[in-house]
Parts: sequence; structure tokens; C-alpha cells
Amino acid sequence: MTDTQNSLSRLDAVLAEVIDLRDTTALLNWDERVYMPQGGVAAHGDMLATVRRLAHEKFTSSEVGRLIEDATTELNGESDPDARTRLAVAAHDYDKATRVPADFVARHARASSAGHQAWREARERSDFGIFAPHFARLIELKQEYVEFFRPLAHPYDALLDDFEPGALTSDVLRTFDLLRPRQVALIKAIPGAPPIDTYFLEGHYEEKDILAFALRAVSAFGFDWTRGRQDKSAHPFATSMGSDDVRITTRYHPDHPFEMLFSMLHETGHALYEQGISPSWRRTLVRSGASLGVHESQSRLWENIIGRSRPFWEHFFPALQQQFPSHLSDVTLDAFYRGINKVEPSLIRVEADEVTYNLHVMLRVEMEIGLLNGSIAVNEAADFWNSKMTDYLGVTPAAASNGILQDMHWSVGLMGYFATYTIGNLISVQIWETFRAAEPAADDQCRRGDFSRLRSWLKQEIHQHGRRYTPQQLVQRVTATDIDPAPYLGYLERKYRDIYGLS
Amino acid sequence: MTDTQNSLSRLDAVLAEVIDLRDTTALLNWDERVYMPQGGVAAHGDMLATVRRLAHEKFTSSEVGRLIEDATTELNGESDPDARTRLAVAAHDYDKATRVPADFVARHARASSAGHQAWREARERSDFGIFAPHFARLIELKQEYVEFFRPLAHPYDALLDDFEPGALTSDVLRTFDLLRPRQVALIKAIPGAPPIDTYFLEGHYEEKDILAFALRAVSAFGFDWTRGRQDKSAHPFATSMGSDDVRITTRYHPDHPFEMLFSMLHETGHALYEQGISPSWRRTLVRSGASLGVHESQSRLWENIIGRSRPFWEHFFPALQQQFPSHLSDVTLDAFYRGINKVEPSLIRVEADEVTYNLHVMLRVEMEIGLLNGSIAVNEAADFWNSKMTDYLGVTPAAASNGILQDMHWSVGLMGYFATYTIGNLISVQIWETFRAAEPAADDQCRRGDFSRLRSWLKQEIHQHGRRYTPQQLVQRVTATDIDPAPYLGYLERKYRDIYGLS
Repeated sequence: MTDTQNSLSRLDAVLAEVIDLRDTTALLNWDERVYMPQGGVAAHGDMLATVRRLAHEKFTSSEVGRLIEDATTELNGESDPDARTRLAVAAHDYDKATRVPADFVARHARASSAGHQAWREARERSDFGIFAPHFARLIELKQEYVEFFRPLAHPYDALLDDFEPGALTSDVLRTFDLLRPRQVALIKAIPGAPPIDTYFLEGHYEEKDILAFALRAVSAFGFDWTRGRQDKSAHPFATSMGSDDVRITTRYHPDHPFEMLFSMLHETGHALYEQGISPSWRRTLVRSGASLGVHESQSRLWENIIGRSRPFWEHFFPALQQQFPSHLSDVTLDAFYRGINKVEPSLIRVEADEVTYNLHVMLRVEMEIGLLNGSIAVNEAADFWNSKMTDYLGVTPAAASNGILQDMHWSVGLMGYFATYTIGNLISVQIWETFRAAEPAADDQCRRGDFSRLRSWLKQEIHQHGRRYTPQQLVQRVTATDIDPAPYLGYLERKYRDIYGLS
Repeated sequence: MTDTQNSLSRLDAVLAEVIDLRDTTALLNWDERVYMPQGGVAAHGDMLATVRRLAHEKFTSSEVGRLIEDATTELNGESDPDARTRLAVAAHDYDKATRVPADFVARHARASSAGHQAWREARERSDFGIFAPHFARLIELKQEYVEFFRPLAHPYDALLDDFEPGALTSDVLRTFDLLRPRQVALIKAIPGAPPIDTYFLEGHYEEKDILAFALRAVSAFGFDWTRGRQDKSAHPFATSMGSDDVRITTRYHPDHPFEMLFSMLHETGHALYEQGISPSWRRTLVRSGASLGVHESQSRLWENIIGRSRPFWEHFFPALQQQFPSHLSDVTLDAFYRGINKVEPSLIRVEADEVTYNLHVMLRVEMEIGLLNGSIAVNEAADFWNSKMTDYLGVTPAAASNGILQDMHWSVGLMGYFATYTIGNLISVQIWETFRAAEPAADDQCRRGDFSRLRSWLKQEIHQHGRRYTPQQLVQRVTATDIDPAPYLGYLERKYRDIYGLS
């Protein structure tokens, strides 16, 4: 063993323990949301705070800094690409984590905690005024945070980079400018078409039957049940403690029974990514998705591009009809397909369809940028929100709880996050079209309920690499193009013109 | 705030984090045994090892030692009894933990891990020879361990003290000498009495129905569902992350359906103890049971003294009959009561009835003492086991898997543990008789299914105190006597002479 391996392997050993502690916080979070009795809130809060703090202290220690420096010198000239990747990711994360002083982290944690409590009350009473001073404080903290990362092409780049490493505000805004007019035009064209009937989606579907059907689809997608599980929680999510223990959740609402199915397909997309990461990245920082945007591309691909496609339902609809004869025996495949793809501008992002979703995101990102640079004042934020909703979607919230207070993100200081949903949408279509070009039988496989080639291609091209490549490099490598809104727009227009019979 | 409070409150703050980490290992263990997918074994092993090591390092740090010293000086003359208790427990645990060198802890961990693997294989093949060299190594380590705690009245005291603080080998052996002849005599008298029929306990009882019935009883005992939950696992257990998150598990075996019920009553006894510990001990080392023996007294009280008593079934049997009419409508209360209390010397400790249980324990403790002092050689251990089983219970294992290899304890280096089961049995009756003397309507309350007074009395007298008192002090305080086998023997002889119609 050379000195090179010594420094890097000592670094690997420390980082492995950081990963253990982060995995432990993942389990604590999962438990809190899935099985914890209500009385456990305070104890879990303490456990989480302690484990999280120890993970942070261990990672940002001067020992880690020194080992990164030594390993960098020593690795100079070495050609082991995995070693270089581990070191590069560690250096990137260490630099980001140590630019932010511990004092700031503590102040931000306190403001988030107070903000979240105020937001809950504000949302319950639908009174933005209760949250506004906390929001103002959190925005001030974001302005302070940006300073740690100067020089920047755009101040907002510092926020974006936490969720989508390397993404630039200028690219995001250019993308929005391309998406906005064509998505708005599509939305405006739809009310002129004959309306889509969805009565058959709203009847009473037994939870256990919907769940059984959803589990069949999740299994067909290739979720590995020996390395994962599925439970219920108030809000669906996916989490992992490494690629061998990946957990998804769903929920059942009697008024929207199919949400259970589609949210499971969505979380399965995230889970397949995690399960597909190469075991060689086990207990290293490389062992995660490349970014939230790339992660979302996987969930949206399986949920929407596959799960709301005609070929998918050509395979699964007969089984669904058989399971629910009284609901669906008189419904045609075409009516069902149109039903699950109905476009309806609505106030709530998480209920938005494929056509309107990105506009919810744009509104939020534009608002975050304006709040950060001071061109929007906090006391004007609710009005800004409402007028943008009217412009983009033609609907106006009557209450703040259905408007500016609907998402939890800002209340806990998450800003720069929303753009990743749209980036994920764009990448999902770019990836799908690349696969289809390589695999002309892709639609036929889907019609047979056979997703094995898609899954193994995604694993080969994307999943296995973890964080080896930046999101931009990964998309280049897979699709031979940059992140690009054109394929997504083409997909949307083709799919929805067909569904609504538009010219 | 005085300096006194400063040293102690700094100590409290460090220990609170130690507790957080220990609670986290409790959650990791729970998850591993209840919900973890099989693929998660390695990742969970890493998480557990890291969190456990950090908890140990934090607790045994020189900072903790210094704070204990400073607080001891400063608290001199102060009269806050809670502060004194917190400090005394911390000093006791710190002394024990720091006597054992880190190097020994690591060697013991390796030997336990190897021993457990060998034991699994040995048990599967019923070949003690596979486990024997590991067993010998573990015994050598125990001999080394004892040296860290000299001077000792008896070397075995060092092992006993880890599970039953302050217990003395001489007392345990004297107790055994009192129990042995009278329990053996009772066992020998029973085969002369008419046999008890249990056909009605062995039919097919649906899991969900037995579970529903067991949950009624658990709720009647007073388990607080807002501060706990119940799940299934391969082996029933109780665990807690503080008194506000206490979890029990059970299992279902179609051949022994009532095991599910009685194991739930048993674990509920442990859980009520944990839920009853005063919130003022939250995040302190005082926040646990006084010892394993006292803990076991609570589980045995609720499982056996209540759950296998005639008054309990006077209340619950009609409901059980109603739930299982085809099994039980022709069975009398008396026949049922006799059935669930049938005495049958058997090879397996965990299946043993009240009359034979202590003899399984005695055999193990006598063997541990002999192995530790060298009077029994490892290669004679299996023969020693078999001949003692014949002496005490009149049954002889044909295979090591049903004999010396049946328990997991020794394979992971747990020695000194078994005695706590018998200590728990003794204390359970002492406590129950004290309650009954104070509460003449105790049996009537039981006949009405009303356990509120018993539960609140136990909370008041035992649970709330956590580790404030040693087991010996606690028993003195509650019963005004020392730990004493006479009440247990009296209870056994009265109950089983009645059941078997012995003179």
C-alpha cells in the first residue's frame, strides 16, 4: 500500500462513518414519518439533532480537510478513476460545507424551526401575515448565505447549486423563457376542446385493492423487494440507507384513489435510482443521485412517461378492469387513458398535471430570485403570487393557504429547490428519447409490461454512476446534448394535442 | 446559576447526547428486527457499530470524568436529591465503563461476533464441537474481565453486576439452595396427579383474532398507545427510546397460538415500566429500569401472576369464548385455567412453565460459575448440562441443539445474565403480595378487568424512580424486606397444589 492509498483510505474511513451517521438520520426520519408513536416527537427530535450535528462535525473537521489535501497531492499522477471521483466529490462537498460558519448554521436552524412553526399556524389560519416576518428573516439569511460563495455569476446560483450542482440561474431563466409561452399556449387551447370525463376515477376504490395493483406495477418496474420496502405515510416519499435498503411510502385518499398508484410509481422511480447505484460506491459520498433534478427525472419518467402512457395501460388496463369490474368494465382503454391525463389548471402544485406543473415551478423560482435581490418585498409576495397564478394558469387563490402558503419548503429555509422539479421534467424526456432511439422496441416492451431493458439501460447509463458525473456531464454523456427544453415541449405538445384532438 | 449547577448541567448536557445515541441504537435494533429488508444487514451493521462506538467514546471521555469529579466536589452539601441521583448513577456507570480498556472491548466484540456465527452453525448442525473453541475463548475473556473489578467477594460478582447492580453470587446461590429442593419436590409430585388436558389450546386460532384479543388485554393493562406501538418479530421483545416511545413485539406460531397472547402480556410488563419512568429523568442515565431483575419482575407479574391467574380469566374468558366459540364454548373456565398452567418439564427454557423455569436458570448459573473458576472444562460442558437436566427436570436432551446450544446468550458473550430471570420471578411475587396487602380488593379489581390501581401503584412505587434506587434498595423500600425466595415458593406451592389437587 502506497502513501497515496494511505491518505485516501484514511479519508474513506472517516467519510464512511459520516455516511453511517447520515444513513442513521435517514432511518430516524423514515421512522418519524412512518411508525413513530405521536409521543416520540421530542425524543426523536433530540436524537436527530445529535446525530446530525455529529455527522456535520465529523465531516467538517480539520482532519478531513488535511486528508483531502494530502490525498490530492499524493493522487497527482495516479490513474485510478474511482479514487479520483471519491476525492473530487469529497473536496467539493467539504469546500461547500466549510464555507458556511457554524454560527450561521445554528442561526439558520433556529430560524427554520421558528419559521416552520409559524408557517403551520399561518397555513391553518390562511394568514400570510403570521409567516411574513419569519419569511423575511429567512430571506435575509439567504442573502447572507450567498456572500459565502462569491464570486458568483448570479447570486441565486449559490442557492441553486445546493440542489443542482453546477446549474446556472441564467440557464434556468432561459429555459423558462422557452417553456413558458408554449406551455401557456397549450393550456389556453385545451378549454376549446371537448371536455374529458373522469367520473370512473373518483368512485370508491378499496385501498387494499389499489395497493395490490400498484404493487404489481412497482414489481414490474423492477423494484427489488429484498433491498427495499413500502409503507404508508402522510406524504409519499422515498429514502435510502444505501442501495441495499431503499424505502418508499404512499398514501390513500378515498376521494383520489389513483393518487396512491401514481405516487407509488413516482417514488419507485427514485427507488430504482438508489437501488441501481454501484456497490463500489458503498459508504462513500459518491453513493447518491447526481442531483435532485436527475433524481426527479427518474421519478417523472416512471410516473408520467411510462405510467401515464398508452402502451403501459395497453398492458395493465385489462388487469385493472378485472380487479375493479363494477368501476371499469364499461370504460374503454382510450377513455381511461384520457381520464388519467386530464389537464386542469389548479391552485395546488402537487396536484398539477404534466402540462401545468412547470408553471407552478416558474412562479416560485421567479419569486425566489425577486425576493433575494430585493425587487419583490415580502409584504408584496402574496399579491405577486396571485397575479402570476392568474397570468400563467388563469386561476387565482382565494386564500393564502391555497396560494403562497401551500408549500412547506420556504418555511424551513429551502430556497433554490423548486427549479429541480422542472429540470427533472426536461431531463426525463431527453433520457427517454435517447433510450427509444437505441431501443426501437421500447413501446412494444411497455405494451408487454416488460421494463427490464429500460431498467437495465437506466442502471447502466445513469444509476450505477451515483455522483461520478455532474448533472450536466451526465446528461451530455447519455444524450449527447445539454439539458434542453425542446424535447419536453415536443413530448407535451404531441401527447396532449393527441389527447385533446387539437390541430 | 451556581458553579455546582454549572458542572452538573454541563455533565447533564453531555450525557443527554449519550442517551440520544443509545436511543438511536435502540431504533436501529428495533428496525433490524422488525422492518428492515434482508439486504440491509450490512448497512445496518455499519450504522450500529458507528453509533455505538461514538456513544461509548463520548461517555468514557476524560471530559465526562472531569465533570463528574467537579460536580461531586461542588455538590457536597447541596441537598437536591435528583441532582445527587443523576451524579451517583453517572459516577457508577463511568467507573464501570472506564475500568475496561478499549482494547479489551474490541477483542470481546470480535470474539462475540465470531462466537455468534459459530453458534448459529453449531446449533443448526447440533454439534457443540463447532462452538466449543469460541466458547472457551469467551470464557477466557470473562476471566480477564473479572480482573478489572478486583477486589470482589466472588469473581462471578463482576459478571452479575453488569445486569443486576449490587447482586452477590453468595446471595444468589443461597437463594437457589432454598428454591431447588422445594421446586424439584413440586415437579416430582405432579406426575402423580390426574393429567391436565390442553387439546383446546392447540387448535387453529386465526392470528388476527388472537392478536385482537391480546391487544384488548394489553390496553386493559394500561399500555399507552400514544407513547408506544406493537409489531411482529421473530423473537418477542420490548425496547424504548425514552418513556414516550416504547415498543413491543410478538410472534404467531400456528402450533402454539397462545404464545402470542402471553408474550404480549410479558412484553407489556416491560413496557409499562418504561412508560412509567418519571419525565424528570428524561435524557438522563437514571431513565431505565433499576436492573434486569426488577424489569423481569414487571413482565412476569403481568404475564404470570395476573395473566395466568383465575381472577384475570374470570373477566376475560367469556370474551375469549365469544371470539372463539367453536374452540371454547364447551370448555369450562376451570379447564381453561388449568390448561394454560399445565406443568411439563421440558428441554427448552423459553417454553418452560412457572414451576420449572427457575431450574433452567439454576443449571445455567451453576455452569457459568464452574466454567469461570475452571471447575468445569468446556469439553465437559455438554455432559454437565445433560446430567443436570436429568437431575432437576427428569428430561435429557438427545441433541445439543435442544441442550447446551439452545440459548443465544453465551454465543455473544453474555454471562451473568440468566440469574436475573429468577431474581425477577422472586421479586414479582414479593411486589404483588405487598400490593395485595395494601389493596384488599386487588383480586376483585382483576375480576372486573380493572388494572388501574395496580398500574398506578406500580408506577408510584417502582416505575417512576427509574434507577434512583439499586434493586436491593428498591425491594426494601417497596416490600420492607430483602429479595427473598419464600413468597415465590409459597405462591408456586399454593397455586399448583390447587391446580393439581395435591395435598
